[in-house]
Amino acid sequence: MASRTSPEAAAHAERGALAVICGGGTFPLAVAEAARRAGREVVLFPVRGFADIPLEGWPHVWVPIGQFGRLKRELRRHGCRDVVLIGNVLRVRIRDIRFDWTTLTMLPRVFSMLRGGDDHLLKSVARIFEEAGFRLLGAHEVAPEILMPPGQLGAVAPTEGELGDIEVGRHALTVTGPLDIGQGLVVMSRHIVAMEAAEGTDLMLARIAELRRIGRITRPARCGALVKLPKAGQDRRLDMPSLGVRTVEGAARAGLAGIAVEAGGVIVADVAALVRAADEAGLFIYGLEPPTETKR
Amino acid sequence: MASRTSPEAAAHAERGALAVICGGGTFPLAVAEAARRAGREVVLFPVRGFADIPLEGWPHVWVPIGQFGRLKRELRRHGCRDVVLIGNVLRVRIRDIRFDWTTLTMLPRVFSMLRGGDDHLLKSVARIFEEAGFRLLGAHEVAPEILMPPGQLGAVAPTEGELGDIEVGRHALTVTGPLDIGQGLVVMSRHIVAMEAAEGTDLMLARIAELRRIGRITRPARCGALVKLPKAGQDRRLDMPSLGVRTVEGAARAGLAGIAVEAGGVIVADVAALVRAADEAGLFIYGLEPPTETKR
Repeated sequence: MASRTSPEAAAHAERGALAVICGGGTFPLAVAEAARRAGREVVLFPVRGFADIPLEGWPHVWVPIGQFGRLKRELRRHGCRDVVLIGNVLRVRIRDIRFDWTTLTMLPRVFSMLRGGDDHLLKSVARIFEEAGFRLLGAHEVAPEILMPPGQLGAVAPTEGELGDIEVGRHALTVTGPLDIGQGLVVMSRHIVAMEAAEGTDLMLARIAELRRIGRITRPARCGALVKLPKAGQDRRLDMPSLGVRTVEGAARAGLAGIAVEAGGVIVADVAALVRAADEAGLFIYGLEPPTETKR
Repeated sequence: MASRTSPEAAAHAERGALAVICGGGTFPLAVAEAARRAGREVVLFPVRGFADIPLEGWPHVWVPIGQFGRLKRELRRHGCRDVVLIGNVLRVRIRDIRFDWTTLTMLPRVFSMLRGGDDHLLKSVARIFEEAGFRLLGAHEVAPEILMPPGQLGAVAPTEGELGDIEVGRHALTVTGPLDIGQGLVVMSRHIVAMEAAEGTDLMLARIAELRRIGRITRPARCGALVKLPKAGQDRRLDMPSLGVRTVEGAARAGLAGIAVEAGGVIVADVAALVRAADEAGLFIYGLEPPTETKR
């Protein structure tokens, strides 16, 4: 980690403050803290209606969705050229957004963005920031320490059979990646029993618990794995999958044996809390080495 | 349709009675009736715990799961060489099955069957019947009239945009077919919002309704399509997808614009009832021409 007088810190100072545009959840704070520890000045831009982190001790400017003109002015006023977008911003109803003038002029583009899948939407967002002269960075670029490490995390190791399930899941996600469906699935005894789409990981795990309850899944408890990978070709500066305590709790309720995610490809904000939760539930957490061709 | 004195009927008589092994739902009865209309003698073998059709007027023998020896004897006693397996047999708990001797000797094979996906399971079942000297037929072979016809069914036609959604879904199912996940998905505005796996079509549609209710899907009502195709390489003598009134009702509750399924690749037992339900709900029902290479 860089001290205040390191060459990295000097380079940071030259690049100005880092803007962290914060959606919901705890990841934005973890990214901001990691960047600050690395000696970087940070300004938070919590998104109204979504951000829910404590803001004490942080310079911050609340921003509403749909006011890109205002956001641009505030970013420039705070000397931010580098921007990180992090946290949940669930899809919003158009009629709930109050657009500013700049955003209104962009509306045809916004509507075309909303017509495609998530990838399409996020790539358009990135382009809009870059055309306005900002540099969009991934959370993994400003805070690599919040990424999943490779191999076993915690006390429980996956068995041979579980590693086989993980491989089935990894292969399937590689195939489905270009379809822009989702980043996760659940495999039991080599069989894909759930595929994540609009519902997200938490609701997919709740579904497995329910399918067990109604007898639609009859495999014994502690069977199967949640597998999550970033989609191939996905812009990792945006929409990086994440793994937190809530996912571990959901996997435990779903009766799974563990969770496998791509090392370096998934955000784990609080590793200590994650390991504690997994050990308590008796689940494995496993970081898969990414295939060489998708490394960046 | 063949009359009692047609050459087809004579050929039927030569081949002996057709055994319809009946799982749950109304499709077994539709198949049996169609075969009988075509002049074939039919014996029903309702599976205990699953079959729920009225049996009056049909020669029938109840069969429990796990008693393949008994089933073989009964099939031979009734002169059945041709066998159709049709209807729902949800996966059962091994400990709930009372195996007969023949089945017990097959247990290692049965366990290996249960470890793979549905395709693997069903292909193994087909092989077991064939090794015992029976001929496994698809419902579409003995009753082609219960298959989905091509083009629009009912009063509502899909729009250009909806046909675009359908194409996105068809392409995705072609890609995911070899992964043996499921036969259906839901597309809205070119975006796959749900992918069917162990939960089945009905629960997937219920999920869409729920995601709308909690605001996770914000697209307007009457948007999107359920798309169902038989998996590429799937043995159509087994596990043919089906479309019934319940699916139409589920699609209506999910706020979809309609349903597209592969013409000739999906069973629709009661077309009149299906059209009535779709017209009442204002949904389109559309039979997609199968790609030439998967025709059989």
